[in-house]
Amino acid sequence: MGIVVQNIDRADLALIDRLAECGVATIHEAQGRKGLLASYMRPIYSGARIAGSAVTISAPPGDNWMIHVAIEQLHDGDILLLAPTSPCEDGYFGDLLATSAMARGCRGLVIDAGVRDVRDLAEMGFPVWSKAVSAQGTVKNTLGSVNVPVVCAGAAIEPGDIIVADDDGVCVVKRSEAADVLEKARTREANEVDKRGKLASGILGLDIYKMRERLEAEGLKYV
Amino acid sequence: MGIVVQNIDRADLALIDRLAECGVATIHEAQGRKGLLASYMRPIYSGARIAGSAVTISAPPGDNWMIHVAIEQLHDGDILLLAPTSPCEDGYFGDLLATSAMARGCRGLVIDAGVRDVRDLAEMGFPVWSKAVSAQGTVKNTLGSVNVPVVCAGAAIEPGDIIVADDDGVCVVKRSEAADVLEKARTREANEVDKRGKLASGILGLDIYKMRERLEAEGLKYV
Amino acid sequence: MGIVVQNIDRADLALIDRLAECGVATIHEAQGRKGLLASYMRPIYSGARIAGSAVTISAPPGDNWMIHVAIEQLHDGDILLLAPTSPCEDGYFGDLLATSAMARGCRGLVIDAGVRDVRDLAEMGFPVWSKAVSAQGTVKNTLGSVNVPVVCAGAAIEPGDIIVADDDGVCVVKRSEAADVLEKARTREANEVDKRGKLASGILGLDIYKMRERLEAEGLKYV
Amino acid sequence: MGIVVQNIDRADLALIDRLAECGVATIHEAQGRKGLLASYMRPIYSGARIAGSAVTISAPPGDNWMIHVAIEQLHDGDILLLAPTSPCEDGYFGDLLATSAMARGCRGLVIDAGVRDVRDLAEMGFPVWSKAVSAQGTVKNTLGSVNVPVVCAGAAIEPGDIIVADDDGVCVVKRSEAADVLEKARTREANEVDKRGKLASGILGLDIYKMRERLEAEGLKYV
Amino acid sequence: MGIVVQNIDRADLALIDRLAECGVATIHEAQGRKGLLASYMRPIYSGARIAGSAVTISAPPGDNWMIHVAIEQLHDGDILLLAPTSPCEDGYFGDLLATSAMARGCRGLVIDAGVRDVRDLAEMGFPVWSKAVSAQGTVKNTLGSVNVPVVCAGAAIEPGDIIVADDDGVCVVKRSEAADVLEKARTREANEVDKRGKLASGILGLDIYKMRERLEAEGLKYV
Amino acid sequence: MGIVVQNIDRADLALIDRLAECGVATIHEAQGRKGLLASYMRPIYSGARIAGSAVTISAPPGDNWMIHVAIEQLHDGDILLLAPTSPCEDGYFGDLLATSAMARGCRGLVIDAGVRDVRDLAEMGFPVWSKAVSAQGTVKNTLGSVNVPVVCAGAAIEPGDIIVADDDGVCVVKRSEAADVLEKARTREANEVDKRGKLASGILGLDIYKMRERLEAEGLKYV
Repeated sequence: MGIVVQNIDRADLALIDRLAECGVATIHEAQGRKGLLASYMRPIYSGARIAGSAVTISAPPGDNWMIHVAIEQLHDGDILLLAPTSPCEDGYFGDLLATSAMARGCRGLVIDAGVRDVRDLAEMGFPVWSKAVSAQGTVKNTLGSVNVPVVCAGAAIEPGDIIVADDDGVCVVKRSEAADVLEKARTREANEVDKRGKLASGILGLDIYKMRERLEAEGLKYV
Repeated sequence: MGIVVQNIDRADLALIDRLAECGVATIHEAQGRKGLLASYMRPIYSGARIAGSAVTISAPPGDNWMIHVAIEQLHDGDILLLAPTSPCEDGYFGDLLATSAMARGCRGLVIDAGVRDVRDLAEMGFPVWSKAVSAQGTVKNTLGSVNVPVVCAGAAIEPGDIIVADDDGVCVVKRSEAADVLEKARTREANEVDKRGKLASGILGLDIYKMRERLEAEGLKYV
Repeated sequence: MGIVVQNIDRADLALIDRLAECGVATIHEAQGRKGLLASYMRPIYSGARIAGSAVTISAPPGDNWMIHVAIEQLHDGDILLLAPTSPCEDGYFGDLLATSAMARGCRGLVIDAGVRDVRDLAEMGFPVWSKAVSAQGTVKNTLGSVNVPVVCAGAAIEPGDIIVADDDGVCVVKRSEAADVLEKARTREANEVDKRGKLASGILGLDIYKMRERLEAEGLKYV
Repeated sequence: MGIVVQNIDRADLALIDRLAECGVATIHEAQGRKGLLASYMRPIYSGARIAGSAVTISAPPGDNWMIHVAIEQLHDGDILLLAPTSPCEDGYFGDLLATSAMARGCRGLVIDAGVRDVRDLAEMGFPVWSKAVSAQGTVKNTLGSVNVPVVCAGAAIEPGDIIVADDDGVCVVKRSEAADVLEKARTREANEVDKRGKLASGILGLDIYKMRERLEAEGLKYV
Repeated sequence: MGIVVQNIDRADLALIDRLAECGVATIHEAQGRKGLLASYMRPIYSGARIAGSAVTISAPPGDNWMIHVAIEQLHDGDILLLAPTSPCEDGYFGDLLATSAMARGCRGLVIDAGVRDVRDLAEMGFPVWSKAVSAQGTVKNTLGSVNVPVVCAGAAIEPGDIIVADDDGVCVVKRSEAADVLEKARTREANEVDKRGKLASGILGLDIYKMRERLEAEGLKYV
Repeated sequence: MGIVVQNIDRADLALIDRLAECGVATIHEAQGRKGLLASYMRPIYSGARIAGSAVTISAPPGDNWMIHVAIEQLHDGDILLLAPTSPCEDGYFGDLLATSAMARGCRGLVIDAGVRDVRDLAEMGFPVWSKAVSAQGTVKNTLGSVNVPVVCAGAAIEPGDIIVADDDGVCVVKRSEAADVLEKARTREANEVDKRGKLASGILGLDIYKMRERLEAEGLKYV
C-alpha cells in the first residue's frame, strides 16, 4: 500500500478503439472466455461502449483519497478502475471527480463499489460500471495504491491492461494479447455476418453447425 | 434428460394475445395469485408486454446446446423458456440465437440464467426476461431436454403453458385455465376503470371498499 | 400495531422543495453523512428528483391494508413511506393506489418491499423507490400502523421527516434539522461551482485540496 | 387456495427408510441429478439423515395457520414441507408445533422460509431444513392449502413424494420412481466401496475411470 | 459523529437476567413482535443465550477505533452493539478486544459487520452475533460515536436498551417496557407448558386453539 | 485452457506448518492485510486450521474433470484450490475424491463453488472451505487447467502459493514472501501475549495504545 506507479505501458489507442467496436461478448469469446468481470458490474446508463487502458486503484473501504492521486496519472484514452481492499458499496465517485477525469482524457470508470451523482454523470456522458449506486460519501484518510495489480469483481487486472465495457458488462484484455484478440474478434464478426443472414432466412443452427449427428450420438430422443 | 417432445398442445393465439394486453399484475390476480416467477427475473429493456406458448428447455449449467434444438420446435407465437438444472448466470443466448428464434416466429425469451448482446437484442426488439446479463459464453457438450416440465425461477411450467411477461415480471397461465383467467382478468379491468375514476376524483379506497367498519372491528385506533 | 396518528408536524413546503433541488448526494453530505437508506432502494424509472414529508406506514408482510388508511392522512407534498414488519418483496402498491395518492397530493412512494404496475406508474409520473418490482398481490387482513416511527431500509424515520429521493437513492432529513441542512447544502453547491470550473480546466484535486503534503507525510511513494 | 387433500398415496416405509440410508448425494445421482432443492436450504443442526413422505403446505407469507391443519394429516413417517406463496423468512415453526408434529409421527420439517426455537428443536431431535432462522412470528389469518403440488426451493413436489434430507441438503424422489431409484442408489454404493478402496490405496481416478485417453483426445497438454 | 455519552440509564440486572432466560422468540412475541434484528445476524457458536444493556457504537466502515472508546464505558452486564455507518463485513473485533471487554464485565457483542478469531472467542466463551466472519482488519482513523441511537440490522436501538440474543437471533427490548415484557413473556411460558403437554399427548392445535370453525367460515375445503 | 503444469515450486513444509499455527487473522495482518479470500468461503466444520501449497484448478461451471487431473499433481502437504470459470455452486467434490486426495497427502480443499458428502468429509477429517454445500453433481466433458494462476473468491492465486485456512476464513501468502510474513506474524503473536495480559487485567486499550490524545485532537467529545 502507498505506491503510485507513474509510468505504465499502454496499448496503441487505435488498437484499443477497434476493440471497443467489437464489444464485450465478442472480445470475451475471441480470447477464450477469460477476463470477464462479475455480472453484478452494471452500467449506470445504457448504450455506452468503450475501451481504454486501465489506470488501477487499490483503495480502502470507504476512502476515495487515491482517486485524486490516480487522476494525475491519467493519459488520454484511459479508464479508471477501482477495487476496494474489502467489500464496500459506498459512493466513491461523483460528478466533480468525473469532471476532473474527463479533463484528463478519461473515458470512464469501472468500480467494484458504489458511485453517485448518476444523473449528472449520464448527462455528462461519463460512463460508469459499478457494483452499486450509493450517495454514501467517503473519507480521505488512508493510503492505497495506484497502478498496481488488483483483483476487481473477480478478474485479475494489471495497469495498462485494456478494459472493454458495454451493456453486457466489463472484460479485461491483456496488453500483450490485444492484437491477437482483435484479429480473432474480427474473424468472429465476419463469420457471424454470414451466419446471421442464414439464421434470419430460417435456416437452423442445427444444420448450419451440423449438430444433428452428434446429438443423435449422444442419445437425444425425439418423441 | 435427452428428450425432445415435438408435438405439444398450444392455446389459441387470439386468446394468448388478449392475455398479453391484460398484463402480468392483472393476470396474476385474476388466476388467484399463482404462477408468478421470482422477482429477480427482470426485462433487459422496458416497455415490452408479451404472451406466448412456452417451449421449455431444461439445460445443464453453462451449456446452451439445447437452445438450438428448441428453436426447431418453435411455432409462431411461442416463447422460449429456459431453466438450468443448477443455478447459473452464464450468457446462454445472444443476437444470433435471437435472429434464428425470430425467424421462427418466437416472441421472446424467459431464462433463469444470463443473456448477452443485450443492446443488439433491444435494437432487434427481441424481449428477454433474465436473472442476469452476462457475456460469459457456454459450451455445447451435454444433453438437456426440450418441452418437458420445468421449474423456472420458482414456478412450475409445462410446455404449452402460456407465459405472460411485462415490466412487472413474468407469470405462467395453465393452458386449461387460460380462457377462464382471461374472463376474470377482463372483469377486473372493467371494475378498475370505475374505481380509477373514483379514486382520481379523491374518493378514498376506505370508502369505496367499505373498510372503515372492519378496521374498527379489528381495533384500529385513530389518535 | 393498530394506531393511526392523524396530526403530524410537517416542514414548510418551500423549504422541502429547495431540499429536493439539492439532490440526495449533496443533502447527505450536508447533514454529516447520515440518514441514507440502503442502496438496494432503486427508482422504478430514471430522472425523478423529489422531496416531501413522510407519512409512514408499518405494515405486515404481504398485507397492504394500511396503505388505504395512510392515503387518507396525506397532505399536499407528502411522500408515502412503507416499512414491512418483516422482510417482504410483494407488490403492495400499483396504479390504483397511485391514482388515489396523487389525488391527495402525494409526490411519490418509498417502500422497503415490492411495487407493481411500474409501466403505468412511469406513464402517470408517479415515482417510486423500492426494494423490488413484483406483481405478487397482497391481502387486507392484519392491522399495522400509520405515522409511527419506523426503520425503512436501514434508516430510522419519524412521521413528518423529510424524504429526499433521486437517482442516487433516498435520504431522510430530520424536520428540526432541515433548515440547517439546506443552508449547508447550498454552501456546498456554491463551493462546487468554483471547484467544477477548476477541475474542468484540468487543475487537479491534488492541488485544489492541497493534498500533496499530507499524502507525502502518510508515506505515499511515487515510483 | 383453501383446499386440504386428506388421502394421499404414500410409498412403503421400509423403502423410504432405505432411501434415507443412501443419503441425498447418492439418491440425487441415482435418479439422474434431478429433484434437488436449492442449496440455501440448510439443516438447523448437523448429523440428521432422514426420509419421509411429503405432507405439503402452501402458505401465505407470514401466516402459519395451515401448519395446524397439516399436522392433522400427518401419518407416521411423514415430513412436513412448506412453501410460501411469496418469498418470506418469518419463523413459521417452533417447539410447540414440533411437539405436536412429533406426537403424530412426523420425522422433520423442510421449509422454504424461517424456523425458530432452534435450540429446543435440536434438543428434541426434530430436524429442520430451512431458508432462515428467525424469531419473527406469524399470524393465522389467510387460508392456504395442504397436500397440493408445490414448488419448494426450486423443486416441484407433490404430496406423497419422498423427501430425503441430510447435511448435503434436500432431495425429492417421485413416489413412482422410488423403488427404481433405490436400486440404482444401492448399485452406486456397491460400486463406490470398490472404488474407495482403490483410491485409498493411491490408485488414481485417472486410471480407475480410464480418463487419460479422452483427456489427450480433447487436447490436454502437460507442461 | 465524535460523541461519547458517558452516563446512560440501564435496566436492573436481575430483570435483564430473567429476560435472558425467556429467550428471543418468547420475548419477541411478548412485546408484540417488534424489535427483532435481521435474520442474517447469526451466532458464531451455538448454545449461548444472553441479555444485557446495550452500549452502542456507530462506527465508520472498516474502522474499529470507537470499540476501544466504548469498552471504557462498559458496566458489568453490558453488551457491545456496533452498527457501521455504511455496509461493511470487515472483522472489527477479535480475541484481544474480547479479552478487554470481558475484563470490564461485557457479556457479548452484536455487530452488523464482521468478527474474527472466532475459534478463540468460542474457547473464551465470549458470544458474538454478526453479519459475517472475516479476518479483514480495520483501521483507527475516523471518529464515530458511542452510546448514541443507532439502527443495527434493521432495528432502532438506543443506549441502555436491553439486548436479548440466542440461537434464534437478536431482539431489542425498550428499557421502559422491560418489566412489562417480562411479565407477558412469563405468562406465555406458563401457557406453553400446558399446551406443550396437550400437544405431546396428540391433541391437535386445531382443537386446543378452536380453529375449526373459523377455518370453515373462511372456506377451507377438505377433499 | 487445457494445460497442466507439472512442476511447480513449493515453500518448505516446515515453514508452511508454522504459518498454519499462526492462523488466518494473524497472517493476514502480518502481510499488510492482503490476500484474504471473500468471507462467503466458510469451513464445512469448525476447528480445522491448516496451511499448504496450492495446487490450483481452473474448471468450467459444473464440470469436475480437472480435479482428477489435479490429484495426480498433489505432493504431500498440498491443498487443492478450485476456481470455476463462471459462478457455480454445484457439488464438485465428495468423499471419493477426498479419499483419493488424502491418499496423495492432500491437506484440504478450498473451492469457490459447492462440495458434498460433508458429513463423510467431517468424519474423515478432510477440511473444506467452500461457497456452498450442494449435492448437485457435475459432468466430465470440458477441459480446464491445473496449476495455472487463478482468481478464487476475489484473491489472485498462483500455484505453489501458500494457503492458510481456519475458522476465520482463507488467506493466500505469496511463496516469496512467506518467510518474511512468518517472522512478522510471530512478532505480532509475541506482542499480543503481553497485551492480552494487560487487557485481561482491566487496563484499557485506550491507555495501552495511547489513543486518548489523538482522539481528543480529532475532536471526540465526552458528554
